[in-house]
Amino acid sequence: MSTQSPAMDAARSADRIESDIEALSGPKYTTTDEAIRRYAYTQAYRNTLDYFTRALEELGFEVYEDAVGTLVARNRPRGEPVFGLGSHCDSNRNGGKYDGTLGVVCALEVCRLSAELGLDLPLQVIAFLEEEGSGFGQMLLGSRIIAQRVTQEELESFTAIDDGRPFFEHARDAGYEPERWTESLEVLQDLIGWIELHIEQGRVLQDTQKRLGVVNAIAGYVHGDVWIDGRADHAGATPMGFRVDAGAIAAEIILELEQLATRAGNGTVGTVGEIEFSPSLINVVPGGARLSVDVRGVDEDAYRGVARDIAAFAEESAARRGAKARFVQRQVMPPTPMDDRIVAALTRAAEATSEPFITMPSGAAHDTMCVADHKSTAMVFVPCKDGISHSPAEDSDTRDAALAAAVILGAVRELAGS
Amino acid sequence: MSTQSPAMDAARSADRIESDIEALSGPKYTTTDEAIRRYAYTQAYRNTLDYFTRALEELGFEVYEDAVGTLVARNRPRGEPVFGLGSHCDSNRNGGKYDGTLGVVCALEVCRLSAELGLDLPLQVIAFLEEEGSGFGQMLLGSRIIAQRVTQEELESFTAIDDGRPFFEHARDAGYEPERWTESLEVLQDLIGWIELHIEQGRVLQDTQKRLGVVNAIAGYVHGDVWIDGRADHAGATPMGFRVDAGAIAAEIILELEQLATRAGNGTVGTVGEIEFSPSLINVVPGGARLSVDVRGVDEDAYRGVARDIAAFAEESAARRGAKARFVQRQVMPPTPMDDRIVAALTRAAEATSEPFITMPSGAAHDTMCVADHKSTAMVFVPCKDGISHSPAEDSDTRDAALAAAVILGAVRELAGS
Repeated sequence: MSTQSPAMDAARSADRIESDIEALSGPKYTTTDEAIRRYAYTQAYRNTLDYFTRALEELGFEVYEDAVGTLVARNRPRGEPVFGLGSHCDSNRNGGKYDGTLGVVCALEVCRLSAELGLDLPLQVIAFLEEEGSGFGQMLLGSRIIAQRVTQEELESFTAIDDGRPFFEHARDAGYEPERWTESLEVLQDLIGWIELHIEQGRVLQDTQKRLGVVNAIAGYVHGDVWIDGRADHAGATPMGFRVDAGAIAAEIILELEQLATRAGNGTVGTVGEIEFSPSLINVVPGGARLSVDVRGVDEDAYRGVARDIAAFAEESAARRGAKARFVQRQVMPPTPMDDRIVAALTRAAEATSEPFITMPSGAAHDTMCVADHKSTAMVFVPCKDGISHSPAEDSDTRDAALAAAVILGAVRELAGS
Repeated sequence: MSTQSPAMDAARSADRIESDIEALSGPKYTTTDEAIRRYAYTQAYRNTLDYFTRALEELGFEVYEDAVGTLVARNRPRGEPVFGLGSHCDSNRNGGKYDGTLGVVCALEVCRLSAELGLDLPLQVIAFLEEEGSGFGQMLLGSRIIAQRVTQEELESFTAIDDGRPFFEHARDAGYEPERWTESLEVLQDLIGWIELHIEQGRVLQDTQKRLGVVNAIAGYVHGDVWIDGRADHAGATPMGFRVDAGAIAAEIILELEQLATRAGNGTVGTVGEIEFSPSLINVVPGGARLSVDVRGVDEDAYRGVARDIAAFAEESAARRGAKARFVQRQVMPPTPMDDRIVAALTRAAEATSEPFITMPSGAAHDTMCVADHKSTAMVFVPCKDGISHSPAEDSDTRDAALAAAVILGAVRELAGS
C-alpha cells in the first residue's frame, strides 16, 4: 500500500485530474475555440475517446466501443462482475470543461488509484454518447439506447442538427453498426453497481461550503404550461375595477407556485421560467398569458401534488377575476431513487475523509437515470462555481474531484473489494 | 322651429349619422377591404375629405384645407368668433368605422341641426390629419402641427411607413404647402371653444348602461419599464431557498401596481402590458426580467405618486430577494383638464335629455389635448361595443351619436348662441 500521506495522494490526484481536464480542453477536443463543443461522430469527439482509450489501456484495461460508439473499458474479462464508473464526454454546443467530462476523468482517476494502491478492484468505465443532445437534439441519447429506452422507429427518425442526415448514417460513417443497437444493453450486463460523478450544476454545495454531495435520488418532474384567457382592454380607458387582467392572474400563479413548492418541502421545487402576455403592448391590459411550469422533486407525491395544486389555483384565481385558465401538461418523469447500499457506502467513505459533504437529490437529469432501469446506482456531486454549467464559464476545483475519486474508491472497495 | 317631436328628430339624426358612417366605410374610403385603413395623402383619405367638403358646402359653409391638409369648414367669415367641433377622419391600419370619423360626422350633424332648426350658430368644423399615425408613424401629427407641438427638424425627419419618403414630399405631392406649416395655428385662431366627440374606447359606458360620457379631463401618464437583475439558476438543481428569481419579483410588482393604482383612486390606472424573462427557458430560474409600466390618470399627483411608489417597491422587493431592480422612464405626459364652462354646459344639455350619462375622464389621448394648448375644450364620449377600438370589430350605436349631437348642439347654443 502507499506510503505517502493522504494529503500528498490527494494533491497528486488533483494534478492528474487537472491535467486531463486541461488536455481535453485543447483545440483537438472541441469544434470551436469559443467553448467546448463536441458531440458524437465529430473528430473532436473521436479524439476524446482516443484520449481515454490510451489512458485506460495504459492501466491494462480492455477498451472497446459498442454498436453506436459508447466507450467501455474493463479490467476483467466479460462475464465477470465489475463495478461501473463513468459519465459522458460530449458537451452542449456552448459548453464548458467539466460537465460530463469530469465524471469520465474521475472514473479514470479511480482506476489509476486502484492500480497504484495495488487494490486491483474489478472496474468498468463507461463514457455515454450524446448526453447533451448536441449532435442529434436528443438528450441522454447514448444511455437511452443502452437502457433500451428508445424504439427502432424513434432511432430511425433522429437526424443531425448540423446536416439533417439520419443518426444511423452518421453512426455507420463513423465505423459503427448502429442497426445492432439493441445489443448495447450488454454494456450494463456485468455491473454489480454504478457510480457517476458530475458537477452539481447548482449552488447548494458552494453556498453551504460542502466539498461533496452524495446523491440519494434524481428528481422526477412535471412540465407544463398555464394558459390564461382574460380580456384585452385599453390601459387608459379601462378603470381598475373593469379589468380581466391575464397578467395579474399570471403574477398570482407565479407567487403561489413559489409558496406551494416551498411548503411541499423534501427538496420540491417549482419554477416559472417562461412567460408571454398578449397582445404585449404597454398600453393594453393583457388579454392572454402563458407561463411555463416546471415542478420537480424526489418525492413524487409532493411534486405531483404541487402540480395539481397550481393547476387548481390557476383555475380558481382566473375564475375569481372572471377569466379562464387551464394547465396543459407537456411531460412527466418519475423520480429515480439511488441504491441505499451504494449511498451508504459512499456516505461512510465520505465521513472517513472528515471533509464537509451532504446527502442531496439531483434536480437535473443524468445518464444514471437510464442505468438505474437495470442496475443499482448512485452519484456524487462536486461543487461548480456559482452553479454555472452549459457555459464556457463553467468552473470546478479539481481538488474536490480528487476527493470524490478517493471517496468513490473507498465505496467501491467496500462494495466490490475482496 | 321644428314641429317634429324630439324623438323624431333623434331618429332622423341617427339615420343621417348612420348613412354617413356607412358611406365612409365603402370601398372608395379605405385602402383595403379587410378593415378601414385610410391615412393622409392616400386617395381614400382625399375621398373622405371630399365627402365632408360636399356635405358642409351644401350647408353653406366655406371649406378649405390648411398648409398640410387639415380640413376646416366655417359658416362665418374669418376673424369672427366660431365654436369648434370635430375630430379626425384617418384610421389606424386595421381600423373600424367609428374611431375619429364618428366625431367629424357628429360635428357635421350638429351643423345640419343648427341649420335645420334655424339656429345659425357660429360653427367651425375641423378634421385633423394623422391622429392615428398610420401614414408617418406619428400619433396626433395633424393636431400637433396646428398646436405647434413639433419643430421644423422633427417634421423634416418624419417619413412615410409605406415608402420611407419624407412627410414634406408626400404633402407637396398631394398639393399642399407643408413648408408653411407654422401658419396652421390660424386654424384655431377664431375658436371660442371646442368640443370633440369620440367613441369611448373603453367599456365603462356600456357596462354602466350610460349613453354619454362628458369628459372632464384627458389623462396624463408615465410610461416606463422595470428592469430586474436576479440570477439565472438551474430549475432542478436550485432549491427554493437558494434562488434570486427575477420572475417572482416581477410578479410581486404586477400585483403591487394593481393595488397602488386601485388605492390611488380618482380614476388612476396602472398596467403591466409587456413582460419578458431571460433566458426564458422552462428549466431555468429567470435571471432577468423586464416589465412595462403604464400609469395614468387625471390627478397628476396621484398617478405620478403611483409611478414613484412602484419604482420604490420594485427596488425594495428586489433587494429583499438579493436582486436589483430599477425603473426607467420612457415618457411622461401631463393631464389635460377640460374647460369647466364647456363641461358645465354639456352637463346641463345632457341633463335636459333625461338620458343616462356620466362625467368621466378620458384615459386615451385625443387631438383635443393639442387644441387645449390654445383654447377652451371639452369632449363627449359615446359607448362602443365591449370597449373595442382599432379593429374592424369596432361598433357603436349611432342613436347614441345622435343624442350626443343634440347635447353638443344644446351646449354650443348656450355658449355661443345669441
